[in-house]
Amino acid sequence: MMLTPAMKRLVALALEEDLGRGDVTAAAVLDGDGGPARAVLLAKQPLVLFGLDVAAYVCAEVSAEIRVVRRIADGTLVAAGTVVGEVLGPAVPVLMAERTMLNFLQRLSGVATQARRFADAVAGTRARVVDTRKTTPGWRGLEKAAVVAGGCANHRADLGSGLLIKDNHIAACGGVRSAVERARLRAPHPLRIEVEVKSLAELDEALAAGAEIVLLDNMPLDVLAQAIPRAHAGGARVEVSGGVTLDTVGAIARLGPDLISAGAITHSAPAADISLDFT
Amino acid sequence: MMLTPAMKRLVALALEEDLGRGDVTAAAVLDGDGGPARAVLLAKQPLVLFGLDVAAYVCAEVSAEIRVVRRIADGTLVAAGTVVGEVLGPAVPVLMAERTMLNFLQRLSGVATQARRFADAVAGTRARVVDTRKTTPGWRGLEKAAVVAGGCANHRADLGSGLLIKDNHIAACGGVRSAVERARLRAPHPLRIEVEVKSLAELDEALAAGAEIVLLDNMPLDVLAQAIPRAHAGGARVEVSGGVTLDTVGAIARLGPDLISAGAITHSAPAADISLDFT
Amino acid sequence: MMLTPAMKRLVALALEEDLGRGDVTAAAVLDGDGGPARAVLLAKQPLVLFGLDVAAYVCAEVSAEIRVVRRIADGTLVAAGTVVGEVLGPAVPVLMAERTMLNFLQRLSGVATQARRFADAVAGTRARVVDTRKTTPGWRGLEKAAVVAGGCANHRADLGSGLLIKDNHIAACGGVRSAVERARLRAPHPLRIEVEVKSLAELDEALAAGAEIVLLDNMPLDVLAQAIPRAHAGGARVEVSGGVTLDTVGAIARLGPDLISAGAITHSAPAADISLDFT
Amino acid sequence: MMLTPAMKRLVALALEEDLGRGDVTAAAVLDGDGGPARAVLLAKQPLVLFGLDVAAYVCAEVSAEIRVVRRIADGTLVAAGTVVGEVLGPAVPVLMAERTMLNFLQRLSGVATQARRFADAVAGTRARVVDTRKTTPGWRGLEKAAVVAGGCANHRADLGSGLLIKDNHIAACGGVRSAVERARLRAPHPLRIEVEVKSLAELDEALAAGAEIVLLDNMPLDVLAQAIPRAHAGGARVEVSGGVTLDTVGAIARLGPDLISAGAITHSAPAADISLDFT
Amino acid sequence: MMLTPAMKRLVALALEEDLGRGDVTAAAVLDGDGGPARAVLLAKQPLVLFGLDVAAYVCAEVSAEIRVVRRIADGTLVAAGTVVGEVLGPAVPVLMAERTMLNFLQRLSGVATQARRFADAVAGTRARVVDTRKTTPGWRGLEKAAVVAGGCANHRADLGSGLLIKDNHIAACGGVRSAVERARLRAPHPLRIEVEVKSLAELDEALAAGAEIVLLDNMPLDVLAQAIPRAHAGGARVEVSGGVTLDTVGAIARLGPDLISAGAITHSAPAADISLDFT
Amino acid sequence: MMLTPAMKRLVALALEEDLGRGDVTAAAVLDGDGGPARAVLLAKQPLVLFGLDVAAYVCAEVSAEIRVVRRIADGTLVAAGTVVGEVLGPAVPVLMAERTMLNFLQRLSGVATQARRFADAVAGTRARVVDTRKTTPGWRGLEKAAVVAGGCANHRADLGSGLLIKDNHIAACGGVRSAVERARLRAPHPLRIEVEVKSLAELDEALAAGAEIVLLDNMPLDVLAQAIPRAHAGGARVEVSGGVTLDTVGAIARLGPDLISAGAITHSAPAADISLDFT
Repeated sequence: MMLTPAMKRLVALALEEDLGRGDVTAAAVLDGDGGPARAVLLAKQPLVLFGLDVAAYVCAEVSAEIRVVRRIADGTLVAAGTVVGEVLGPAVPVLMAERTMLNFLQRLSGVATQARRFADAVAGTRARVVDTRKTTPGWRGLEKAAVVAGGCANHRADLGSGLLIKDNHIAACGGVRSAVERARLRAPHPLRIEVEVKSLAELDEALAAGAEIVLLDNMPLDVLAQAIPRAHAGGARVEVSGGVTLDTVGAIARLGPDLISAGAITHSAPAADISLDFT
Repeated sequence: MMLTPAMKRLVALALEEDLGRGDVTAAAVLDGDGGPARAVLLAKQPLVLFGLDVAAYVCAEVSAEIRVVRRIADGTLVAAGTVVGEVLGPAVPVLMAERTMLNFLQRLSGVATQARRFADAVAGTRARVVDTRKTTPGWRGLEKAAVVAGGCANHRADLGSGLLIKDNHIAACGGVRSAVERARLRAPHPLRIEVEVKSLAELDEALAAGAEIVLLDNMPLDVLAQAIPRAHAGGARVEVSGGVTLDTVGAIARLGPDLISAGAITHSAPAADISLDFT
Repeated sequence: MMLTPAMKRLVALALEEDLGRGDVTAAAVLDGDGGPARAVLLAKQPLVLFGLDVAAYVCAEVSAEIRVVRRIADGTLVAAGTVVGEVLGPAVPVLMAERTMLNFLQRLSGVATQARRFADAVAGTRARVVDTRKTTPGWRGLEKAAVVAGGCANHRADLGSGLLIKDNHIAACGGVRSAVERARLRAPHPLRIEVEVKSLAELDEALAAGAEIVLLDNMPLDVLAQAIPRAHAGGARVEVSGGVTLDTVGAIARLGPDLISAGAITHSAPAADISLDFT
Repeated sequence: MMLTPAMKRLVALALEEDLGRGDVTAAAVLDGDGGPARAVLLAKQPLVLFGLDVAAYVCAEVSAEIRVVRRIADGTLVAAGTVVGEVLGPAVPVLMAERTMLNFLQRLSGVATQARRFADAVAGTRARVVDTRKTTPGWRGLEKAAVVAGGCANHRADLGSGLLIKDNHIAACGGVRSAVERARLRAPHPLRIEVEVKSLAELDEALAAGAEIVLLDNMPLDVLAQAIPRAHAGGARVEVSGGVTLDTVGAIARLGPDLISAGAITHSAPAADISLDFT
Repeated sequence: MMLTPAMKRLVALALEEDLGRGDVTAAAVLDGDGGPARAVLLAKQPLVLFGLDVAAYVCAEVSAEIRVVRRIADGTLVAAGTVVGEVLGPAVPVLMAERTMLNFLQRLSGVATQARRFADAVAGTRARVVDTRKTTPGWRGLEKAAVVAGGCANHRADLGSGLLIKDNHIAACGGVRSAVERARLRAPHPLRIEVEVKSLAELDEALAAGAEIVLLDNMPLDVLAQAIPRAHAGGARVEVSGGVTLDTVGAIARLGPDLISAGAITHSAPAADISLDFT
Repeated sequence: MMLTPAMKRLVALALEEDLGRGDVTAAAVLDGDGGPARAVLLAKQPLVLFGLDVAAYVCAEVSAEIRVVRRIADGTLVAAGTVVGEVLGPAVPVLMAERTMLNFLQRLSGVATQARRFADAVAGTRARVVDTRKTTPGWRGLEKAAVVAGGCANHRADLGSGLLIKDNHIAACGGVRSAVERARLRAPHPLRIEVEVKSLAELDEALAAGAEIVLLDNMPLDVLAQAIPRAHAGGARVEVSGGVTLDTVGAIARLGPDLISAGAITHSAPAADISLDFT
């Protein structure tokens, strides 16, 4: 994975906040660079690995003498106890890099693992689960890459790379029809017109106005069961959203939507447990 | 809360990643700045509020015309349905700021709420629950402030503001005694000497060497029950760590340690549900 | 216009490069802040104005004591001799800001003016002229806003906000059909599938594979005259590109494409002549 | 050419604005890094080459696996069809770097080519053509280097590296004499005293006051014909400025000035046509 | 004084390094913002004041609620015990800003005071004392401004704003004559040609080659006594340098040079003693 | 020494301020990169060396072709005339890096040398001399490292890594007792409680309240002679501060304190004289 300038700036922030004042413990109890060390990155739970490239970049920024060796490819589901990589270098810089490296790896693997759970929950249906813009501020690119590594897909990257008319836009425009028509006239041509609807009436209005994708927001399953085929009949793709969890995503998927978006993939993924063990 | 330069850099990253290419939807369906709007920040679950200062700074960076009015003080536990603040300004910049503002507020209130659960779980004991360095990279200062707002306390801020000898240091130094003695000679004087021990034998060695704080790591409850009074008898403060959860923290606290550290306060806190509703 | 963090960073670069070492002339010949001054921003040629918000931000960064007063709205075509704004403040900081302010204003108004020429050249046809990614590095957001102010439209903002399969992708995929099919399966759903074709044969292949937009690249007018209706018949939108100039754009537009993209709007727009005259 | 920190910050801005959200097309239609590729940088018009060092830095920032091979030295005039360099590396990062690399190269070669035209137009005279501060904001250092590569020379780099008293300074000081005298007393000693004059009367006043360089601004050719020898007789160097174009520069040069400054070298240079062709 | 972007970046570095992790003492012993406070900035030794604008900017960055009131103008020599300014605001942010504010003020006033000593030592002669590029890295602009406030003058700001041929250039060029001749042909015209000479023979060579300024480096007083009038007779200005101290500068000045440059003004100026006293 | 992101940002500032506009002299008198050069870093006075890693980083940022070879280890006291390192590379970039490299090296070696003087002055006593937060803004980490290299020790790194209750806190809290008690309850546990006292009465109050370290501020020697044993008897460590100089530090040390803090180590250390001589 290419690290963008924004990602590098996030790593710089992370290094500054943890070791900008040095490591008083290592300086007190070890001499010089502490001598050569070797440590393994160990998965302590089943997880989908993602983030070794960032971990390696963290190490490289701490010291040119650290080398990170990858053992497992990004996106692989590994069992607890798997060694996913090795870290070789002088003990002091490795200790200094340890926490920041792990914090990145645990969060990104946590997101990838959560994505895998969602992907598994819809397996066998036509739906694909996508992320949202509910990502950790500063982490958009990294978390979106972790989502893909886990087997889900990305919704728009930002406010500039997808056109999605939401309830507030509709209110301000005086209705679904008016909003969709404006978008068809004025939006950048590479973007499809997607509109959020909250009822069957709004859905009909959206289809009539020429929406290409309808986002069925917060509809109960029985309403979705009507809305989805009606939208397909109207020629639109269908995205479902609104409080989607691992418990509900399967039932939704079986109703036949094209896409299901879930903020929980990123905003509430628990960290995956990975440790760095010196050998 | 004063926003440090590092926090401002994180906000800049967040704004760039979401609206650095503008908002194609607002540009397509609204005219000009969209006209005056008013929206409320609504807690959709019980939560401990934290982060309105960051949310206000986000808005100010998007447009000098947005004003955020605080209704609830940081650190307050509010019921679902509480309006915690108001956002006033032209519709387009408010819509552009919405997601970034909420992403900060939801994560920080999530951490504060998680901290409150931990603090409540040890109420009535002498123990205080503290955070760790397992924070989201780039978010150290913000998450540590949220922990305090939620009623827990902060462990060291970084590798430079606390001396904590861990297992890897001990291995490299040839034993607990040697590591503690070096630290007593060489560490900055404002810092107490804290050392991690994994057994009663290591505990005794640490006490004999003059450790001021012992970190009892990953000990079962029955071992803790012996170790804690023994450490106190040796004149040391006692911190307990290792996979501490809301389920286990109460039982640990009742054994009498001074401090219990829990990475889960920060690394796995689910986002709190807060929305921005236009009125 | 909201200035994004990236735009502010560009202004910071610009200020550093011109006045980071101060202004030796003003320091030598004037005393203190030079006393109050008033200057007008004067269009010295017919032009479409764009960039006063940036100019005002430049001034504010140089000194909080400078005030920029707008006289003309962005996107307005003004005659030579029009006063488009006023600058009020102490003489020394105004002199220090002058060149940087003008450099932004001249380039952005130059782009807006060039865009207006293209827009005028296709007036009365169904085609809209769009920009490309051939913008001045560091200026993407500013120049794209100037294009809109001048009456043209924006193509994708960056590599992440539009899917456009070009000749090199096709070569690497083994053909138009294969590339389009992969994109339909794997691309983010908010994006339409656009593919560049260089011949009628490729056009047919693209339409058969389900392309939603076809980019007819570097085709002579007589080939375009066949390709455009054929693409429309196949249900696709049509973009034309390839060395489009003010001399050729009208003839192309009369053939009926939906879009014509022209790098020359941004990469070769001459600066508009605007001066700052003290009064 | 050494890339200064400011130049590197400009490149970072450029990369963020084009590929900060990744390349959705390459991700959709290619697998992994796309496999090894080789492409040539091809001059599609006669041009003076400048900017390969920046292009190589762009590539290196995108991926350490891309290698740029120079075929032609900076400042060389090449014929249409000349291969000026090669780009070797995995297809995906090369495609991601392509547009940014070309945008730098085309603009900088455009400036160098424009500079060459000006230099050629004054060949055989004693005049040298110099640039101005009318450069693209953020690009000062790069464009000034391109000017030299094209065969012209640099005027002052910024407000701190040359003393040039202009009409506004003169107005504020109460006259040419007073301004020049103040400058002689108070300016940094490494700088010559240059003053802009608009009439023969001002010229005489400047010479009497001890100006070392006179800038004859916006004078018609017949006035220049008197002013230049008079200035030389007074011991001053002579710079001519004011709307200088390729059409007028030769006639001015034949009147014998030392320097002719032309904003058009940088502010209105058309981009040179260079493509990246995969082989 | 306008703070340049570079100066603001230095202040950001300074704030991060001192209070990026907050102020644990204030947080522990005070409540909230600590309530309103008033403190005075007190000169504890005779000094030339410089830096209140930077101090005020530091405070503004820490909290918008702090106000700094100037009592004494920059460049004023004040007696010990003088109150030079007041700081008003909540106690906690004032305490957080205190050290950084004082560190800037003490260093900058230290430089201004040192400059005043040098200026006084040459009073009554025609020499002016100038600084060098031996400034604290990161502080160039600030220290050069302090030098002027103290009554000395600035040499070139950087490698781009003055042409000074030193011994190493001469060695590489094959002699003084060749170096000066190249410079006369190739240097930017706003810059005078200055050349360093170490002997009377080199001086003669420099004068013959047309040097406009000669830098007499590390010559004993008796050699200077011959060199200075000889240089003046040759039409050059004269700068003297090389280990100039307060003890030697007067005697040098009485020999009649135009300029004496002294690195000691900036690189070894002791901090001026200024305190912040709460009232 | 690992260079932190903050240190790298300081170097970037330093390079921009000196060579952001290039080197006009080298460009004028030399051709191309000037050809291969070799220079030695020469100590021109006895000094304790520190900073070669920063010097090497400076060179690497200027050009990848420069190589810095270390001859002497950091912290070594060398005689005048010692070659401490070599610089190899093309003449032009070496000349461009020279001044910035030396400015870092001279200041950091100046601090290390000053620290050595302080350390020597207390040799044979139990006291260790520590630095303060009176460091050059932007240089905190570098100067603290130089202090250690010179043989002194570090006090707290910043406001977050040490708890030190000063007179202003005491005033705001209503007395020493109250302040210490609050700190014991509310401070982060890794930090000892240190309190500044100005009289024997305050000392007694601090000891009674449980202070772990007392800072005896600005006490005359005869009062210190009473206070130090009294504090030790009360179980506290003792730090002495207040206008400590090389003249007074020895006498203070012989009274038996644990620590003596001296701002003069950093804020007024004269630069060490080091030159770069081409060979």
